[in-house]
Amino acid sequence: MTDKEKKTPISELGEFGLIDHLTRKIRIKNKSTKKGVGDDAAVIDHGKDQTVVTTDILLEGIHFNLIYTPLKHLGYKAAVINFSDIYAMNADPTQMIISLGISGKFTVEDIDLIYEGIYLACDNYGVDLVGGDTSSSLTGLTISIAAIGHASEKDIVFRDSAQINDIICVTGDLGAAYLGLQLLEREKKIFAEIPGTQPDLGSYEYVLRRQLKPEPRADVIKKLKEEKVRPSSMIDISDGLSSDILHICKSSGLGCKIYHEKIPVDKETEKLAGEFQLDPMTAALNGGEDYELLFTVPLDDFEKIKETGFIHPIGHITEKSQGCNLITADGIPVKIKAQGWNGFE
Amino acid sequence: MTDKEKKTPISELGEFGLIDHLTRKIRIKNKSTKKGVGDDAAVIDHGKDQTVVTTDILLEGIHFNLIYTPLKHLGYKAAVINFSDIYAMNADPTQMIISLGISGKFTVEDIDLIYEGIYLACDNYGVDLVGGDTSSSLTGLTISIAAIGHASEKDIVFRDSAQINDIICVTGDLGAAYLGLQLLEREKKIFAEIPGTQPDLGSYEYVLRRQLKPEPRADVIKKLKEEKVRPSSMIDISDGLSSDILHICKSSGLGCKIYHEKIPVDKETEKLAGEFQLDPMTAALNGGEDYELLFTVPLDDFEKIKETGFIHPIGHITEKSQGCNLITADGIPVKIKAQGWNGFE
Repeated sequence: MTDKEKKTPISELGEFGLIDHLTRKIRIKNKSTKKGVGDDAAVIDHGKDQTVVTTDILLEGIHFNLIYTPLKHLGYKAAVINFSDIYAMNADPTQMIISLGISGKFTVEDIDLIYEGIYLACDNYGVDLVGGDTSSSLTGLTISIAAIGHASEKDIVFRDSAQINDIICVTGDLGAAYLGLQLLEREKKIFAEIPGTQPDLGSYEYVLRRQLKPEPRADVIKKLKEEKVRPSSMIDISDGLSSDILHICKSSGLGCKIYHEKIPVDKETEKLAGEFQLDPMTAALNGGEDYELLFTVPLDDFEKIKETGFIHPIGHITEKSQGCNLITADGIPVKIKAQGWNGFE
Repeated sequence: MTDKEKKTPISELGEFGLIDHLTRKIRIKNKSTKKGVGDDAAVIDHGKDQTVVTTDILLEGIHFNLIYTPLKHLGYKAAVINFSDIYAMNADPTQMIISLGISGKFTVEDIDLIYEGIYLACDNYGVDLVGGDTSSSLTGLTISIAAIGHASEKDIVFRDSAQINDIICVTGDLGAAYLGLQLLEREKKIFAEIPGTQPDLGSYEYVLRRQLKPEPRADVIKKLKEEKVRPSSMIDISDGLSSDILHICKSSGLGCKIYHEKIPVDKETEKLAGEFQLDPMTAALNGGEDYELLFTVPLDDFEKIKETGFIHPIGHITEKSQGCNLITADGIPVKIKAQGWNGFE
């Protein structure tokens, strides 16, 4: 596309490399810009409260496949994955805007279904849809959402402020969304080979729901506030536990130890992983799309929240020199690698 | 795509009809949502200052054609058309976030060029890039930008507050961006028929610049502030003068008279329209993408700004019962129709 000699495939940098490359020269100009690129959301200062802003783009064929994604679920998911980024800042989502690219194959009734999902998400999480841009598209469906949230300055939690010896906590369970995707892909293939086959999805309701209709952890944020616990760092698990714990450690300039046996995996995820001859831990570490929260707290604070049933300690923060390690069941440390997808490969 | 019987082609509603249809049920839930859907930007209240938020999506093959759009210009335009929406609220853009969908044909150097344009726009207009989402795409290039601006509550100008007898003003000149596009399309066709032909663009620098590298009217907003003039209503001309004056009149519940001979058209636009056997007024009224400002002011305020050279009175606001009319050179009123493109047809 360019006239220059040098042509670097994007896959050479990968997703995170590309972002680093593109944003390395940014110099902030406005006093109101409290936090720019590099966290779940940006933070804008208003003297009194602060605004938190994030965006996510969903592209047909990359982030969703309309063969098995109901349009209402798609609208719902597109909205809540943005809310999840706002909660991961310890803020509450309040407004959202949506940009939609729609190809000729869609009817008004189709778009209504997408909006039904969006409005349901807005109702469930108290968010106002305040604007957007709708365009025709030559090439499938594109949904780009930006969400805005509010919090007081003292409440906002970044990725870069974990402390040595903090307990690393994860909410809910991991890997289910990835297994849900594998299941849908398998049924799609079977259908392509033997048209008319009824999909066999009945007994895997949980993993399918985790893939198709995830819920952000507003309840966790509420619970932390009730217990007056402010995490020292926090991120939502969208890329996978491996990538996301590395984001915290890298930003905070520290290391970590997380324990294989402590990583929460649901029984249904485990069972289905068996069917697929996959290690469920691979799904938990690298699957992504779980939209659980990963955060760090001092031990005293952890004591206040350990009885909730949905917050699990999985390890602790260490000095940087110790690196970032997963400790296997046999006690062997394995270096954690960012497996976040490289869709550019 | 749906199981329902009823299938309504989106073209039946058109762009504005679809937006009305999708947003008719919105009920605002948050006190901080001062203005939702229905203006150039949404307004969020922070007690002290207010935040203004807008978004625009650009899709390959719909909003731009990479055959004749330099990537740096594309990045620049994608950013400034969002800034234009913020200025149209009488606010200053301060932050932006970008979502990018990139297909396999693009290299890192290509994306660098897009970002060079974005950063240049940010530098020129004092905006910070604070976040975004980058994804691979199966289907061409998608750029979705959301811009955030700030203003005090008393400064923000909406579309719905024009008053009877207000002077209708437009900045700069109209129709050039549309002629620029026609010129580029013509050269593309010639090149397709006779490969190797050198494009004949040299003498039409102005219309090409208006199409490929528009500039939002920050200077007008500054001038209005200097003269202590706050427009009674304002919008930026993205869809075309016809559509945009109707937005003001419909929102304000009023009518208008605009005068054919008062509509500012540049000489180069006129000359090129002649070559294409087009009425230059059609380009001015319906072409769109001029990113000029259209606003209304009381006569007293107009007196303060009429010597600027770049603010042109084109008519005045009337009672609703008089309708929205364009008065031809012969004094004949013609009903103004929204010609905003319907890309869904």
